[in-house]
Amino acid sequence: MSMRKLNPTRFVKSVFGDFMKESGLEPRLFGPFMRITNAVPGKVDFELDIAQQHTNRLKILHGGTIASMVDLGGSLAVASHGVFATGVSTDLNVTYLSNGGAIGDVIKATAVCDRIGKTLAYTSITFTNKNGEIAARGSHTKFIAKVWGKNEPYTTDKPIHGEQPE
Amino acid sequence: MSMRKLNPTRFVKSVFGDFMKESGLEPRLFGPFMRITNAVPGKVDFELDIAQQHTNRLKILHGGTIASMVDLGGSLAVASHGVFATGVSTDLNVTYLSNGGAIGDVIKATAVCDRIGKTLAYTSITFTNKNGEIAARGSHTKFIAKVWGKNEPYTTDKPIHGEQPE
Amino acid sequence: MSMRKLNPTRFVKSVFGDFMKESGLEPRLFGPFMRITNAVPGKVDFELDIAQQHTNRLKILHGGTIASMVDLGGSLAVASHGVFATGVSTDLNVTYLSNGGAIGDVIKATAVCDRIGKTLAYTSITFTNKNGEIAARGSHTKFIAKVWGKNEPYTTDKPIHGEQPE
Amino acid sequence: MSMRKLNPTRFVKSVFGDFMKESGLEPRLFGPFMRITNAVPGKVDFELDIAQQHTNRLKILHGGTIASMVDLGGSLAVASHGVFATGVSTDLNVTYLSNGGAIGDVIKATAVCDRIGKTLAYTSITFTNKNGEIAARGSHTKFIAKVWGKNEPYTTDKPIHGEQPE
Repeated sequence: MSMRKLNPTRFVKSVFGDFMKESGLEPRLFGPFMRITNAVPGKVDFELDIAQQHTNRLKILHGGTIASMVDLGGSLAVASHGVFATGVSTDLNVTYLSNGGAIGDVIKATAVCDRIGKTLAYTSITFTNKNGEIAARGSHTKFIAKVWGKNEPYTTDKPIHGEQPE
Repeated sequence: MSMRKLNPTRFVKSVFGDFMKESGLEPRLFGPFMRITNAVPGKVDFELDIAQQHTNRLKILHGGTIASMVDLGGSLAVASHGVFATGVSTDLNVTYLSNGGAIGDVIKATAVCDRIGKTLAYTSITFTNKNGEIAARGSHTKFIAKVWGKNEPYTTDKPIHGEQPE
Repeated sequence: MSMRKLNPTRFVKSVFGDFMKESGLEPRLFGPFMRITNAVPGKVDFELDIAQQHTNRLKILHGGTIASMVDLGGSLAVASHGVFATGVSTDLNVTYLSNGGAIGDVIKATAVCDRIGKTLAYTSITFTNKNGEIAARGSHTKFIAKVWGKNEPYTTDKPIHGEQPE
Repeated sequence: MSMRKLNPTRFVKSVFGDFMKESGLEPRLFGPFMRITNAVPGKVDFELDIAQQHTNRLKILHGGTIASMVDLGGSLAVASHGVFATGVSTDLNVTYLSNGGAIGDVIKATAVCDRIGKTLAYTSITFTNKNGEIAARGSHTKFIAKVWGKNEPYTTDKPIHGEQPE
């Protein structure tokens, strides 16, 4: 596939597709259950269909699943600025407020890149359960000195997750 | 199996076995790669053989895997006080300092329960990579009002993870 | 002064006045430089005129001043639900994004109580500098089991900060 | 005073003295009540005599005072590596475990620089109350790209806090 410039939603889906292809954790944990629903520069919406593998001993969404989505969500929020690499984590915080849901429920997330500089990016995320309550919120700071490539923003030759290759 | 009182290491292994049997995330993510190496009241040592499913796009230990171990480790540190249920999370923090390792490396963790009260337990954890460097450290606060059962501490009828049933 | 029911803004100002009278840190650090500008149930706006005592060696707003406002702001967000006592802290996080300002600048804060239960309250806060940038954001979890008194919410016999006693 | 090389304890005291002279918050909040008791490369011990200005409405050590000491302690832990400037904060976390003490009590702190790199430094801190309990613990990540001066480490022409100028 040749290099082309994408809109933010399709670009973030291409980055998400790269996570699903190149990373080990995301395909293992989120597999076919997660999808990007929208992206604009600095903000990404995604959701997860809660499956058995996402739950804890109480049979509800696991805090570790949420923490992993704080990590991934922050990376996608960075990517929404048009960069394909998304750096490494420095600090990650999660506060758990309410039951995130049971198997079959959908949990929705909105990840925001509050600031992106030359070396650090600051992201935050909110998770909403099926009742519209805040299930959790998090913060994720990333070291991104090396993400600034030579490509024009939003340009990639990678396929787009969820779409058939052209 | 009948109720019996165990030493802290075997008791924590029985709780860990329950996570592997009843929870969804732990068997999916940590499967046969994680083991408890020691437990005393208030402190648990465990380790993970890093596999493909634990890695990120840079092919090293994923921040989400570490965050999930902060969650689990805090629960095991609570369990090391002799309780089978381990409550729900309120706050979880992780700071990432160094490369945690690549596939085939071992990451070691020591989780400590700094304080356990009637309603809240405070835990912290340190991860050490194969070079002996601090790869990450974390904090996990749990709401535990409902973990205090009628059983004597360290008493369970559950099997012990990694041992053949007697 | 006799017991009376106040609207949320005046009630939060009465709690803030109690901090200024009964606490040691707030009058010492924030003195006449801080004011509540608005409160509705679950949300409080306040601002600080940055003075010499709030700054660091770089002559800008000190991270410790911001952290102290995360603490106070969370308490005021709890109070905005009509309770006079505001519990004790369990976890507090701050992420610093931008310069908060220099002496003479105003920093604005909005503190939100995302959830209040019987034993725990979850608050978050955002600080905005004079350029409209997010200077910092924070999270503050409080243990509030003992704040539920016998009074009807928003009822107090205390004076209101910034108003002449009637 | 001419440039001279100091041992870590005296060097950290000279940095602390600079905080007391050039910063606004530290002299206002900690004034004569705080002192450095020891420093080695990567670790600083200090203590605070709790005074009225450090307390909350419950007449015990205020969470904001502790958070401000997490901030300062992290800076001093960076300084213990021999640098005079100590960077700016990116993330700060505090977990509150026990009563820190009342007026007249001493709270002790040990701040550690877990890792110092070219752009980021990672510090953690533990506070111990008069009963030897962990009152609080914290984490403080700093951006330090600009602290690396041309001076040899531990070299300064500044006076040493608590000593008469030579």
